[in-house]
Amino acid sequence: MSLGWLEDVAWNKEGLIPAIAQEDRTGQVLMLAWMNREALETTVQSGYAVYWSRSRKRLWRKGEQSGHEQIIKAIHLDCDSDAVLLLVEQKGGMACHTGRHRCFFKRLEKGNWASVEPVLKSPDSIYNNSDE
Amino acid sequence: MSLGWLEDVAWNKEGLIPAIAQEDRTGQVLMLAWMNREALETTVQSGYAVYWSRSRKRLWRKGEQSGHEQIIKAIHLDCDSDAVLLLVEQKGGMACHTGRHRCFFKRLEKGNWASVEPVLKSPDSIYNNSDE
Repeated sequence: MSLGWLEDVAWNKEGLIPAIAQEDRTGQVLMLAWMNREALETTVQSGYAVYWSRSRKRLWRKGEQSGHEQIIKAIHLDCDSDAVLLLVEQKGGMACHTGRHRCFFKRLEKGNWASVEPVLKSPDSIYNNSDE
Repeated sequence: MSLGWLEDVAWNKEGLIPAIAQEDRTGQVLMLAWMNREALETTVQSGYAVYWSRSRKRLWRKGEQSGHEQIIKAIHLDCDSDAVLLLVEQKGGMACHTGRHRCFFKRLEKGNWASVEPVLKSPDSIYNNSDE
């Protein structure tokens, strides 16, 4: 497969693009993370979401520790080619490292960010049983 | 209303945060744009989406030229407080300056970005009739 499609992406000056993960089944927006060229290429080749961790400065296969992988159903690019939208199947029913279904669990209500999603599993139990 | 909620936002080093607009009625992800502090504050105060245009370096009230405003239904913040999700009512049925319903109209298919959303209105007719 030609990689010409990768050339069409408008990476920012750090070589990154924001990637929105939307749950295919429910339409819920789960999270926003970042990809570099290698992350997007690996995502497409493997069929699993792989991001670039800006804090750890390395590729990060979503779910590598938690098992909460994201299976790619479709990948969209926007009009300016500077944002991607992933349609995913979220394994384990949760995308957020806090143990919630999605990362966008805070909603502005009367001047405060209210937490509006339950914690499904404690972060300790998500990450402590992993050998990774 | 206290503005403490604005202090909770983790702006990037340019003072910006990515903002995803999702259509409340359909769940479709319409676009990703950027906000600075003033844009987010104005969005909340006015009830209409206001972004920061990185190319024009000014506040940009979505729909100011096209009439395709976005009425805010809810605003979410993610776990790291560095991305916002707007639930919106999209006026005019289109968010994209290309005249499509949404900006994420390109989908990766067999190594190419295929356009998978119809043009509902030509950009010329969207923008040329405006006095703004």
